[in-house]
Amino acid sequence: MEEIEEKVKRTIEKYSLIKRGEKILIGVSGGIDSMTLLYILNELKEAFSITLGVATFNHKIRSESEKEVELVKNYADALGLPFFKGEGDAIAFSKEMRKSLEDAARELRFNFLFSIAKEVGFDKIALAHNLNDFVETFFIHLLKGSGARGLTSLLGIERNVIHPLIEITRREIVGFANEKGIPYATDYSNFDLSYDRNKLRHQILPLLSSISEHFEEHILKLSDVIFYEDAYLERIVEIEFKTISRQDSGFSLVLFNELPLPIKRRLLRKILGEAYNYKSVEDAIEFLIGTERKKNIREDIYLVKSGGVFYIEKETPFSLDTEYILNIPGETLIKEAGISIITEIIDKGVNFDFQKKNTVYFDFEKIHFPLKVRFRKPGDRMTLEVGRKKLQDIFVDLHIRKDKRYKVPLIVDNEGEILWIVPYKRSSLFKIDENTKKVLIFNAITQN
Amino acid sequence: MEEIEEKVKRTIEKYSLIKRGEKILIGVSGGIDSMTLLYILNELKEAFSITLGVATFNHKIRSESEKEVELVKNYADALGLPFFKGEGDAIAFSKEMRKSLEDAARELRFNFLFSIAKEVGFDKIALAHNLNDFVETFFIHLLKGSGARGLTSLLGIERNVIHPLIEITRREIVGFANEKGIPYATDYSNFDLSYDRNKLRHQILPLLSSISEHFEEHILKLSDVIFYEDAYLERIVEIEFKTISRQDSGFSLVLFNELPLPIKRRLLRKILGEAYNYKSVEDAIEFLIGTERKKNIREDIYLVKSGGVFYIEKETPFSLDTEYILNIPGETLIKEAGISIITEIIDKGVNFDFQKKNTVYFDFEKIHFPLKVRFRKPGDRMTLEVGRKKLQDIFVDLHIRKDKRYKVPLIVDNEGEILWIVPYKRSSLFKIDENTKKVLIFNAITQN
Repeated sequence: MEEIEEKVKRTIEKYSLIKRGEKILIGVSGGIDSMTLLYILNELKEAFSITLGVATFNHKIRSESEKEVELVKNYADALGLPFFKGEGDAIAFSKEMRKSLEDAARELRFNFLFSIAKEVGFDKIALAHNLNDFVETFFIHLLKGSGARGLTSLLGIERNVIHPLIEITRREIVGFANEKGIPYATDYSNFDLSYDRNKLRHQILPLLSSISEHFEEHILKLSDVIFYEDAYLERIVEIEFKTISRQDSGFSLVLFNELPLPIKRRLLRKILGEAYNYKSVEDAIEFLIGTERKKNIREDIYLVKSGGVFYIEKETPFSLDTEYILNIPGETLIKEAGISIITEIIDKGVNFDFQKKNTVYFDFEKIHFPLKVRFRKPGDRMTLEVGRKKLQDIFVDLHIRKDKRYKVPLIVDNEGEILWIVPYKRSSLFKIDENTKKVLIFNAITQN
Repeated sequence: MEEIEEKVKRTIEKYSLIKRGEKILIGVSGGIDSMTLLYILNELKEAFSITLGVATFNHKIRSESEKEVELVKNYADALGLPFFKGEGDAIAFSKEMRKSLEDAARELRFNFLFSIAKEVGFDKIALAHNLNDFVETFFIHLLKGSGARGLTSLLGIERNVIHPLIEITRREIVGFANEKGIPYATDYSNFDLSYDRNKLRHQILPLLSSISEHFEEHILKLSDVIFYEDAYLERIVEIEFKTISRQDSGFSLVLFNELPLPIKRRLLRKILGEAYNYKSVEDAIEFLIGTERKKNIREDIYLVKSGGVFYIEKETPFSLDTEYILNIPGETLIKEAGISIITEIIDKGVNFDFQKKNTVYFDFEKIHFPLKVRFRKPGDRMTLEVGRKKLQDIFVDLHIRKDKRYKVPLIVDNEGEILWIVPYKRSSLFKIDENTKKVLIFNAITQN
């Protein structure tokens, strides 16, 4: 095996990019990088017992595009590999979506690749980024503050996209392609080089080379170290996440505050999700050791402490006025609560399990239809055996967390009587008795 | 407190740069950064209950140097702080040592600061590197491949040197110094700016700013994250180091090979010491899971597997021909073995502990003087009760590791008889019996 193929094989093994027997779709533009990737993966086909496919996308930006598609198709045919092509008007798309041409072209290309992979059943998509591309991406992420994860993202697998040439320089690829007579089209446009990337490639990186000739390799080694340390720390975080997790998605304050800073930070990345950034994490750490009860982390996201746990509280994302008419019999999805309510009407005599979970039974003939589903309103009360009680107090008795109360569905009849706090508590009204003929059954099912 | 002072206070607390009650020596050149550091630490004096001293070093490179020393002295006097000055001819020193002027000046300056700190009793030395210096240093380390530790080294404490201004930009310092009327000398020479640093400062970093305006802050945040993760991982490594350590400085192969890659890498940094680099670590990891018994990690350093452990073996750093004449009575330091041999002559009748550890007793009158200490030679044998036995076999019986055998001292008499394998085994010759009048005592003491 050639040195460069050995190197690609080691990269694949090192970062577990491919498992034996997988189906890999190679994204090929016809340029020297992707044609070389195609050649090398084809050479490694047996070593990994993989099945390959070739996909090319015509962005219709340049007149040569058609010819390039032909070039890729002919090479795929020559290698006996299935070939898929797609096309789209990147310029029109970029105008329509108000995106840069680079972003628009990338989006169209990725949509095409993912759809072929899904339809035909490929496990992974392989792209031809090389070490030079990696270093450029490293710097863009470094300068824009994506954190350590971003710096190394091209090394591993993300969204099933792999980059097997990431340890090979552009110079090595050119030498190898010419030596092997791999056909390729010269790309005159570089339309997918953003301003930042161009500046890095043509101005900054050459200056950096003059300080340290092979700095790309130093950066690759550093990234390799960071990549595995990141993965290791994430495994620790998975364990600690389970340890600090309390029911109802709260987290133990005491256990959290005992953890070392780097683990706290990583846990908060997981917990804060989209609200995660350096500042929100530092704010959260300070808040969690402090005495404050509630802290605004982002306009619509709060951290709240309550009874030894802390949790994320989001501002109500939907109107409290949302109402549904309940389908009887039938299913009604209450999407805000992630709950489906299924209703049935049966004759009382029918053999039926009256102890089913998340299910309540009413006397059909006593109810004032239509029934609707809505969320809590100030002053809501429900009739219980002990009398009419404030919903507020019932929620407290039920230990339903404050920030969850607003999205608990209520089934309400035409007289305004609350029949069921779904799925926690039923009203004492309209019970089945010796005179009941028909039974109305409500069953709540949690959606995933 | 001013914002910038608050910021410095937080930096000091965040990286535990200063403990309450410490004595801090500030290295001051008279330039704006170090004069501002002096001002700010003086303002924070009470907050941290610290004692300050001011030290300045005249490199005699420029004619203004004398004036700058005066400026620093006057300011220290005004603040009522003790002042120390040193001087040296950096140009002459750089020629003599064949170093760059920058390196020579830095060495002279550091030697001076460390010697004052030691003599006068300062706990730490504070230097005035700011965020811009930090980013330059970050890039130099990134490009030259120092690893994650190097990238963040200016944040924490190394060799008791701290950098409290590391989160403050040059721009902030200038604004603050001018607002407060802090006196400073303008440094026209920048003699301590290396070629690389100059290129970064004046060419590369401005280009990077044009890609991401405040990239310095992103780099600082990234470094902050890496700094604490590094410290956390090192604590794990300390624990694992103890877990895998076996007696006689070997390490358990099985336990090592079960560890995750990042911990293996960090353990090997600790174990390989000066032979540590990316390649030696990767080679070592491959060797340790393989079947090979011995592997050359650097010209003079080997990794060796033996009986379930692995260890570092260094090429003999001293001649096997080294010999010492044993001082009797007296002490003889065998520096190659890190052992001191103390001899005494006593009358047999004297009350003496004949069971002392690492001690052997011979009949003084039977020995053929002079005695010498040497190391093993091929064919060495020793007389035991069972007869003359090869030293090789005795070492095996004693479980002395192969790579340690060559530096076990042997006490040999004038006839070539080995009396003692220090401190493991004595010969059966020349024992004390009923006719013994004088006893020769050898006692081996391990040096630290």
